[in-house]
Amino acid sequence: MVKITGSNYIGGQPANNGNSTYHSINPKTQKSSDISFFNATNQEIKKSVKGALDAFQKLQLYTRTDVASFLRNISVQIQILEDQLIQICSWETALTENRLINERNRTCNQIEMFASYIEKGDYVEAVIDKKEGNDKPDIRRMLIPLGPVLVFPASNFPFAFGVCGGDTISAFAAGCPVVVKAHPSHPQTSELFAHAINQAIKKTGFPKGMFSLIHETKPEMIKEMIMQPEFEAIGFTGSYHAGRMIYDLASSRRKPIPVFAEMGSINPVFITKKAIQKRAESLALMLVDSITLGVGQFCTKPGILFIPETANAFVSTIADNIKDKNMGVLLNKSISKNYIDCIQKTLKTKQVKLLAEDTEKLDEGIYDNTLFITNLATYKREKELQVEHFGPTAIIVTYKKLKDLIDLMPYLEGQLTGTIHFENSEISEIKPFIELLKHKVGRLIINGVPTGVEVCYAMQHGGPYPATTAVYSTSVGIYAIKRFLRPVAFQDMPNELLPTALQNKNQGNIMRVVNQEYTRKDVI
Amino acid sequence: MVKITGSNYIGGQPANNGNSTYHSINPKTQKSSDISFFNATNQEIKKSVKGALDAFQKLQLYTRTDVASFLRNISVQIQILEDQLIQICSWETALTENRLINERNRTCNQIEMFASYIEKGDYVEAVIDKKEGNDKPDIRRMLIPLGPVLVFPASNFPFAFGVCGGDTISAFAAGCPVVVKAHPSHPQTSELFAHAINQAIKKTGFPKGMFSLIHETKPEMIKEMIMQPEFEAIGFTGSYHAGRMIYDLASSRRKPIPVFAEMGSINPVFITKKAIQKRAESLALMLVDSITLGVGQFCTKPGILFIPETANAFVSTIADNIKDKNMGVLLNKSISKNYIDCIQKTLKTKQVKLLAEDTEKLDEGIYDNTLFITNLATYKREKELQVEHFGPTAIIVTYKKLKDLIDLMPYLEGQLTGTIHFENSEISEIKPFIELLKHKVGRLIINGVPTGVEVCYAMQHGGPYPATTAVYSTSVGIYAIKRFLRPVAFQDMPNELLPTALQNKNQGNIMRVVNQEYTRKDVI
Repeated sequence: MVKITGSNYIGGQPANNGNSTYHSINPKTQKSSDISFFNATNQEIKKSVKGALDAFQKLQLYTRTDVASFLRNISVQIQILEDQLIQICSWETALTENRLINERNRTCNQIEMFASYIEKGDYVEAVIDKKEGNDKPDIRRMLIPLGPVLVFPASNFPFAFGVCGGDTISAFAAGCPVVVKAHPSHPQTSELFAHAINQAIKKTGFPKGMFSLIHETKPEMIKEMIMQPEFEAIGFTGSYHAGRMIYDLASSRRKPIPVFAEMGSINPVFITKKAIQKRAESLALMLVDSITLGVGQFCTKPGILFIPETANAFVSTIADNIKDKNMGVLLNKSISKNYIDCIQKTLKTKQVKLLAEDTEKLDEGIYDNTLFITNLATYKREKELQVEHFGPTAIIVTYKKLKDLIDLMPYLEGQLTGTIHFENSEISEIKPFIELLKHKVGRLIINGVPTGVEVCYAMQHGGPYPATTAVYSTSVGIYAIKRFLRPVAFQDMPNELLPTALQNKNQGNIMRVVNQEYTRKDVI
Repeated sequence: MVKITGSNYIGGQPANNGNSTYHSINPKTQKSSDISFFNATNQEIKKSVKGALDAFQKLQLYTRTDVASFLRNISVQIQILEDQLIQICSWETALTENRLINERNRTCNQIEMFASYIEKGDYVEAVIDKKEGNDKPDIRRMLIPLGPVLVFPASNFPFAFGVCGGDTISAFAAGCPVVVKAHPSHPQTSELFAHAINQAIKKTGFPKGMFSLIHETKPEMIKEMIMQPEFEAIGFTGSYHAGRMIYDLASSRRKPIPVFAEMGSINPVFITKKAIQKRAESLALMLVDSITLGVGQFCTKPGILFIPETANAFVSTIADNIKDKNMGVLLNKSISKNYIDCIQKTLKTKQVKLLAEDTEKLDEGIYDNTLFITNLATYKREKELQVEHFGPTAIIVTYKKLKDLIDLMPYLEGQLTGTIHFENSEISEIKPFIELLKHKVGRLIINGVPTGVEVCYAMQHGGPYPATTAVYSTSVGIYAIKRFLRPVAFQDMPNELLPTALQNKNQGNIMRVVNQEYTRKDVI
């Protein structure tokens, strides 16, 4: 058992000079834990950032094989935490132990995937234009790490988007030190993960400043963190409101830095008449499962279902199923307050009808899975319906004909995902709609559900604003590493001074573009 | 001969409803041209943007082969302009006809390069994770165009960074329509290029809204352009001041968009004792040529030379050579005013000595090539010396030992380029310095000069802020296209609905990553 101290961890060392603290709260019982977590002082924050820069300068001495070992050791250290991690996190987040065991697997698999990927070495995107004759220079280009990265983990995935989640791990994989601001919903879990990383740093001999864990609940101090000049990028997963605030601050810096903020979306689902005719029952069940999965606290939760107005029986099936589902406990007070707020706002919207939920309970602050129904005109008119409602709720919007959905497109903002359910016989009809929807989303799903974000090479978990602040990036999948790399070119550099990936001999057998062609061959 | 009208061109149609105009001015004679250029009205701006969005939606019907033909036709149309283009541009910019003939070649070669590149098709970065068994989805990812792009061309490269320059052409290549705001230093040249693009649109049957040329000199209207919600990205080449302004506006939009602003830099050159011992004469000539090339109006002009303090003779050779060079005419009034201002500021800086230039002439507003010398301590202290001085001027900074240069690194901001001159016998000594410098620059040049930016695959013309606002991007070279693309993933999409690049059969024989491996094979 690891002893949880409530300290910040700066380059592996506990630091608790602050005079304000906070506690983690069990969302089921509202009970506070005994451990006081120390908000970091200005000095502690600066120390973490200087440590990160110092580590960054030392990292050139480590090969990508070293980094892969470091990553794999983090995975080992996470597994050493065993049940303590699962139990503490379940206490802090009300997520079930089963769910957390699965999420731990995903998190460790993700770490393994990044380790294998950087071992391969292709990720540096080496490009060589060899000097031919005397009139042109020899130019060679590759990706190098950006520098220290600040990570804000999410509340809803305490593992996969937590301290050892995709942002931290992809930044490490890129060769960037990381300072994590612990999410106040699960500080104990965060400290356990910090312990795992610090152990891995020790075991593999990485620079101590490679990682720091900072606790901070004071807005002015969070701003202070964002403004630290040594940071070169920020990773964030959370609400639109917080993401935009971070983006605005980072853009206002003397030296602005990229912010990779994944801020969720409404994830529209479009369903054709024929899809309902063919598979109403299974489709309804699939959608209800997706809406209520993880108590609806997924950034890919389907928030709006566009359904033909004649599909009354299908609507009833969804409503009945959503009523039958037991409501889970939401992650924290702020999320449950926002959930009730947005349900009440939706209730007050003209032309929106409640299909499932007990309104009396709502007034008492008790919430349940919710389903609304409205029509396209109302949806287009009411801005409130067009933004994410975090939690186990969805709005059905009825439409008359496919053309109506095409007319809807200008009202649809950037989305992480868009889903279409149709039958093969409708392919030619649906094609123009797909072409339009493609430009609104990061991922387009056919006859499935948007929840369940596969960690693989081809995954794109991102999308046009307001889904993210960096449309060209993904926060899930192997290409998440690209967020923390940038190109540099070397002109007429002697072979022995070039980074290994760009030397004539292709020692790592990596894929390179040499004189405009992909090849693994040596340069001769 | 093409008749120059002074109109905006919106989707190919002349538009001149505005009531304010401006004229181009010959920088040699200060004479104004007869042609009135009409600042666009708010309505005209909106029309150009709506046209771009409309064109974007039609572009899905065009293949990359079509786009390549369109690009090649632009090159043909530029060549049809023949001497008219060269003469008018030389009149407007004071750049020599020879220089402009070379720049036209580069511009047309660049267009050809993009055409060939998109024909190959590899640029879409297709990634396929094929469904294996039933538990995992089939996911396929590729890059798609972002949408309408706003381009602000540069004054100093009226062709290569002009209306048909790298920003416009790479955006077209990506499949994005472009609205260009003409640079007020060369509006006639801009109209000629607009004519070339509009002819190419006609000849190849592309949507008219693919391109618009807008004249605008009023700051509040330029702001209006940046705020148009339909734009998805901005390309800019110019001063730090203007670039940051555009970045700040674009970041403050309700929907922020990426700004690819290349804002120049001081391009430090570091020279070792041994390099001077071996090749003082040729090195001095090379540096003077680079400093004065194009009247010093290159974003890669070497602005600061770090030279050992014992190298007096070498310093004299540079000074003598720079005095001997004839000063050309600067591009416009604003640039010559800024040049005189920064020379006068530098003159007033304590511990900075003037080595070449006639100060009396300066007081009369007449400028010449200039060279200053100072020491490291002064350089570190004086912020004024650490920013770009646009024009044929450089500052020599003397240092004692290599260690001093390492200590200098924290004072060095992000740069487009960094150059080191050393001898092979110094490789082990210089290596740690190179490692540090690498993290400050976009391109590292060994024993050469930073001017002359080769248009090739491996070129990186970018760098950390304040060299650019997008460290992960390049504005020269083939990967400039990446600025206007973004990834999208398709999950369980029927093969016939997938974009060609992601279908099982690899019809274009493009390079793809299939189940984690590079291959050109079909998916089976």
